[in-house]
Amino acid sequence: MGATEPPRPRRATPRPAAGELELIRLIRRIAESAPGERVETGIGDDAAVLRPQAGARLLATTDVVVEDVHFRRAWASPFDIGWKAMAVNLSDIAGKGGRPLWALVGLALPAPADPAEVEALYEGMRQAALPHGVAIVGGDTSVSPGGWFVNVTLLGEHAGDPKLRSAAKPGDAVAVTGTLGRSAAGLAALEAGRAGTGAARTGAVEAVTAAHLRPTARVAEGRRLGAARSVHAMMDCSDGLATDLGHLCRESRVGARVALDRLPVDPAAREVAAALDADALAWATSGGEDFELLLTCDPAAVTALRDDLGKSTGTALTVIGEIEELGTGPRFLDAGGVPVSMRAGYEHFNG
Amino acid sequence: MGATEPPRPRRATPRPAAGELELIRLIRRIAESAPGERVETGIGDDAAVLRPQAGARLLATTDVVVEDVHFRRAWASPFDIGWKAMAVNLSDIAGKGGRPLWALVGLALPAPADPAEVEALYEGMRQAALPHGVAIVGGDTSVSPGGWFVNVTLLGEHAGDPKLRSAAKPGDAVAVTGTLGRSAAGLAALEAGRAGTGAARTGAVEAVTAAHLRPTARVAEGRRLGAARSVHAMMDCSDGLATDLGHLCRESRVGARVALDRLPVDPAAREVAAALDADALAWATSGGEDFELLLTCDPAAVTALRDDLGKSTGTALTVIGEIEELGTGPRFLDAGGVPVSMRAGYEHFNG
Repeated sequence: MGATEPPRPRRATPRPAAGELELIRLIRRIAESAPGERVETGIGDDAAVLRPQAGARLLATTDVVVEDVHFRRAWASPFDIGWKAMAVNLSDIAGKGGRPLWALVGLALPAPADPAEVEALYEGMRQAALPHGVAIVGGDTSVSPGGWFVNVTLLGEHAGDPKLRSAAKPGDAVAVTGTLGRSAAGLAALEAGRAGTGAARTGAVEAVTAAHLRPTARVAEGRRLGAARSVHAMMDCSDGLATDLGHLCRESRVGARVALDRLPVDPAAREVAAALDADALAWATSGGEDFELLLTCDPAAVTALRDDLGKSTGTALTVIGEIEELGTGPRFLDAGGVPVSMRAGYEHFNG
Repeated sequence: MGATEPPRPRRATPRPAAGELELIRLIRRIAESAPGERVETGIGDDAAVLRPQAGARLLATTDVVVEDVHFRRAWASPFDIGWKAMAVNLSDIAGKGGRPLWALVGLALPAPADPAEVEALYEGMRQAALPHGVAIVGGDTSVSPGGWFVNVTLLGEHAGDPKLRSAAKPGDAVAVTGTLGRSAAGLAALEAGRAGTGAARTGAVEAVTAAHLRPTARVAEGRRLGAARSVHAMMDCSDGLATDLGHLCRESRVGARVALDRLPVDPAAREVAAALDADALAWATSGGEDFELLLTCDPAAVTALRDDLGKSTGTALTVIGEIEELGTGPRFLDAGGVPVSMRAGYEHFNG
């Protein structure tokens, strides 16, 4: 309904429990403070009315975030929960090399609803989305007899050919952006508490904890890599490298070989692992939720891609292995070339 | 990922509890058996890749359906739940006069998951979507520590100007499609049980029960009315006529006058109301979930719209009142012209 009211400052002070209509007004006010691009009608009608770019592909992804499955309220604030619910979807659009644009939010939470918590949740989503120009254009809110459920659906565009999981070719280099193992280190640090991580510097603990609670999606990196013809397959690394590379290999009908000593294990994660007597390499391969990009590319193009990505975003690109002819899924080799068995990432309904 | 496997027949026989990957395979198989239009990549990648029609507006809507809030498992089968979760979204796109195209499904359900139940849920969604050419192109599945949580997001298109809630003008006729009160009658019949509705014919009880559990969205009607210039404001009637007309008046900054004796109260709902000593008129005005279309139009065009809708879809269009200059929201008048106070529809977080 456009900007029928001017944006007003948002308060985070406690207020009494709110009815649905009050929550909708609150949500609409937050959403309209970042109206986004090509939104003709946002929150306040049966459906959002949006103007896609002629000729561009539309990208659509959805992620469910559930209390006591994906987060614990003892550790994650409503702001954190909102931030992460948005970030995991931004990461999916980044994995396609696309530009995120419009979000819809399905929300269920116990009654009575505290409007300050709902406001903080939406503020977390808004702040995760804002740097990318993403607007919240629709949603639905319900009472939950259980805990919190947050389901963000994110729409984006790609003016060319979106990157797929299925486009890897034998001989491709396998590469990842940034570092791995931060999020799992953050989870371990939260579980251990400050006393348990005493041997690690506060800065390292804070860095990994922030990476777990408020991850950063590689949107700019994805758009840069997504526009490069030399990048073949790409996806975001959300379930853990071992699991995600397995998905990529299965969809591309190829195998892969990864050199464990080439993995960019996060330095802060190493420090927290040492303090906790844990295995940082296992976090890097199986921990998940790092939301880095995993890609395969023409090996001759690696240097150019790395230089371009570094210059445009400051983010590292590290070659960790190679795509092979179809085998029995990805193989992980130690420094001596000996295969190491990897624990798969988290799988719902088996855990 | 297109049709990498040919569609196989779906079974509804019980099978043992499934892991996430098995559920994803099952969901993907059901989704790919109705591949839809302009879907380049569906389930199986980070995001769906879709081709919008050049120049068309994109419509996006989302609805959360929660166990023990929107449905009870004792009454609604997994098939019913899936059907309704899709139908409520189809109805939102119908309310804009749009064409529904692509659905994404966020799902959380308790572990262990029974694959036969998940299959039935998706089969319900698929069968509700199929007559309209809608494909399920993405989703996410999680364990739920509480009950079932189903969040369907539906994307559609409108080649012209989508109808808005905000376009009603003083002097417009107010009209509804079909009949009102069926869904509330169905809920009352389910609550009363077969013994309680004994005085009503079985056919009437079954009709209203089916309307409650597996509602039909007015998609063809919406597209027909959505293409007519003489139709000004339109929306779907999901929260009850009194509440929805209130939304329409607020967004359009107008008032409305409704003649209660002109409401198309459903005959089967009347029969069930008589058996239960209930008020069918209250169901028609405040019951909600009938998923009829509520619209305002040029009064001179009513006859032509009604004839065209009857010929093309077989669905009735009934004028129930008139839009007025801004007042204190819609007024409901009895046959003597005396205002009658209306109970508002259900509002979350207010009990």
